[in-house]
Amino acid sequence: MNNKPPSAFLSALKDARADAWHAYTHHAFVERLGAGTLPKASFLHYLRQDYVFLIHFARAWAMAVVKSDRVAEMRVAAATVHALIDEEMKMHIAICAEEGISEEELEATKESPANLAYTRYVMDCGLRGDLLDLWVALSPCVFGYGEIGERLVLESGGAPESHPYHDWIRTYSDAEYLDVTATNGAMLDALALRTIGDDFATSPRWPALCDVFATASELEASFWQMGLDRT
Amino acid sequence: MNNKPPSAFLSALKDARADAWHAYTHHAFVERLGAGTLPKASFLHYLRQDYVFLIHFARAWAMAVVKSDRVAEMRVAAATVHALIDEEMKMHIAICAEEGISEEELEATKESPANLAYTRYVMDCGLRGDLLDLWVALSPCVFGYGEIGERLVLESGGAPESHPYHDWIRTYSDAEYLDVTATNGAMLDALALRTIGDDFATSPRWPALCDVFATASELEASFWQMGLDRT
Amino acid sequence: MNNKPPSAFLSALKDARADAWHAYTHHAFVERLGAGTLPKASFLHYLRQDYVFLIHFARAWAMAVVKSDRVAEMRVAAATVHALIDEEMKMHIAICAEEGISEEELEATKESPANLAYTRYVMDCGLRGDLLDLWVALSPCVFGYGEIGERLVLESGGAPESHPYHDWIRTYSDAEYLDVTATNGAMLDALALRTIGDDFATSPRWPALCDVFATASELEASFWQMGLDRT
Amino acid sequence: MNNKPPSAFLSALKDARADAWHAYTHHAFVERLGAGTLPKASFLHYLRQDYVFLIHFARAWAMAVVKSDRVAEMRVAAATVHALIDEEMKMHIAICAEEGISEEELEATKESPANLAYTRYVMDCGLRGDLLDLWVALSPCVFGYGEIGERLVLESGGAPESHPYHDWIRTYSDAEYLDVTATNGAMLDALALRTIGDDFATSPRWPALCDVFATASELEASFWQMGLDRT
Repeated sequence: MNNKPPSAFLSALKDARADAWHAYTHHAFVERLGAGTLPKASFLHYLRQDYVFLIHFARAWAMAVVKSDRVAEMRVAAATVHALIDEEMKMHIAICAEEGISEEELEATKESPANLAYTRYVMDCGLRGDLLDLWVALSPCVFGYGEIGERLVLESGGAPESHPYHDWIRTYSDAEYLDVTATNGAMLDALALRTIGDDFATSPRWPALCDVFATASELEASFWQMGLDRT
Repeated sequence: MNNKPPSAFLSALKDARADAWHAYTHHAFVERLGAGTLPKASFLHYLRQDYVFLIHFARAWAMAVVKSDRVAEMRVAAATVHALIDEEMKMHIAICAEEGISEEELEATKESPANLAYTRYVMDCGLRGDLLDLWVALSPCVFGYGEIGERLVLESGGAPESHPYHDWIRTYSDAEYLDVTATNGAMLDALALRTIGDDFATSPRWPALCDVFATASELEASFWQMGLDRT
Repeated sequence: MNNKPPSAFLSALKDARADAWHAYTHHAFVERLGAGTLPKASFLHYLRQDYVFLIHFARAWAMAVVKSDRVAEMRVAAATVHALIDEEMKMHIAICAEEGISEEELEATKESPANLAYTRYVMDCGLRGDLLDLWVALSPCVFGYGEIGERLVLESGGAPESHPYHDWIRTYSDAEYLDVTATNGAMLDALALRTIGDDFATSPRWPALCDVFATASELEASFWQMGLDRT
Repeated sequence: MNNKPPSAFLSALKDARADAWHAYTHHAFVERLGAGTLPKASFLHYLRQDYVFLIHFARAWAMAVVKSDRVAEMRVAAATVHALIDEEMKMHIAICAEEGISEEELEATKESPANLAYTRYVMDCGLRGDLLDLWVALSPCVFGYGEIGERLVLESGGAPESHPYHDWIRTYSDAEYLDVTATNGAMLDALALRTIGDDFATSPRWPALCDVFATASELEASFWQMGLDRT
């Protein structure tokens, strides 16, 4: 188990906006998914929307490559683009295939408003602000899923094969995903340090950065709600 | 009264996606506003969100300046930015002031998800596509308001002073606004002509352009619904 | 005469990169223009390129509107877009018309590499960084022209009608241009304050901001050289 | 040997702007590199600048991911980002290391104006236009290097180990690079087809697309000249 937070900067953001973070990471959708009581129809609705989400989220990570000014940063962001469009999408395609949803149907999913709102907001943070603004907007998804995965795998006794959502829980709790959050956490801390210094909360940018973090967390919560409501 | 449609290209888009256009321009919010039966609280909720909307919509129009490659196009888009942030916002400030809502309160309005979804979608159309994609995403707002204003001023017998929403109806039906739609319509037709030619529907881009138009129209309808529901 | 520097932040940038600033503001093109010894062909070559420059520079100022998150900032940037495409371009058209160069010829000017390099660099600073990065990249042009205008009008005894370049010198030394630099200077200081705080040089971003300022100043110097060499 | 042109759309662009294409692909730098008579100092100057070039060119390819609306397109563009920052840069590091230039020195290379002009122009094509505009701006580099590599490997009798620039020539003529041009060529044709149709030259966008292609080719030629002149 991973006891070390992946990023000091992330911890500060979470502390500053604890309510938004908790509402996202402990949303009813998440709790029912962990308990195995989430209706399959809600999960599949979420999964299909998440497939469309990944396309636009990968575009936003590509924007992080556009905005980088260190080759090392470009490599981390480009690796995430690759992970999203070449790896993570395959889980969606595989689970959906098991449920009789073809790749064509997945591709044809009509994007829900909650989905559209989230990814376009993140992209606009990148267009409007600098790389740190963008990275903060990308953070709730990257780190929240890791935190949720880590908690649910424990609470579900290791997400055994018999758990209806073991694939999902394991994907976001396995060693590979821990690597992703560790790499991203280190990069985020380095980026914050060279952008606003090490005393985060005294930076004049701190309140606005917290707002971006809270808004992206709220948009994650709306995404879960959309799955629950199948809207 | 203006009997000539402002743009042949717009007319083709409206014909292709008549349902989305009608659902937006004849939304219950609009009908009640015209009939004078819209609750004041809904109107003010809408107006406050619309103030925030104008900020981001002006940013999207500025993106049209960034993407222009004709000085004449830049001038039209820049004039719209000016109209939005220097003129239209003043109507909001004035109406809200009459209702006891200060400019500070207006500025502090928390952006609703429906609001955020719409403007960030438009901006992303600009980032992802070309100037025509952006202009199509901007069109439902510009031309729809003119069409609604023109219809409501007739249906309300000229929106007399006694009509609770006469300021709003007159703003979007007066000669000045007709000029805006005429100028934008001519520019849109010229832009479409030199981008996809004059036989719009045979262009390989036509289906995707119609999708952008329909999505922006749906996001307008959600904006009205947000006003109605005060969410 | 204006004895107060328009911006404390600008003064700090100029001090940090005094060589690049001096090479730009005291370039041979500038000195000869002030002395009235600059060949007319060089001036006209510069003016035609500057016309194309203004188009792309106005696009970059529109990008500042896109990136703003204060209505006040949007208004300053939008006013500059307007000044560039509606006012400043007219001086170019008028002077060129006197020399027998039509507006069509002006529009058809082939952009020189030095010209292209400068405006696209500024735009990319906006895409890659935040509003402060962009504003720093825009600064050498805005403030340098004011500083040059102010010096040349004194050195030329007020740039009398008999001076071959009195229009140019007066444009950048008159009260209206002083207003532009004053407004922009105040906005730049406010933006710097709320982005990196008031102790500029201790910000971790300071070296990179100075690099952007120096590069934009060097690209201004290359622009003068292009005029001198008529390349 | 590859006798089939990688893309019908590219062939049409090359035919339309044959002079700019020839001036780039048969520049004196290229001819001397092939003949083995290019001064080593020129080659190393070029190589150091090319290292910086790859950073910004990879950012422009990431912009192609941002602008894609097909997952397949995103994968091709993301693979190119990966190839540039993970593979191609290593050749530069390795060759420079042999010549006593460390990775730190490479990273510290001051970007030349010709270099800056080229990459920022390509990026701005992406910001201003659509994915096709961007892809056309990216084309001269991708396809031109393949064409040069293919010709020089023949003219140099297979670029034997004894040839001073055998690494370079082989990199751009080997099977792996042929794959890159084949994949990109197919993608470019598909993109052109669904953007302007199959009768390229009758599209109203054709002249502007040719201009972008010619400008990027000219900026490539300036890049060679910069290497030759060591500026």
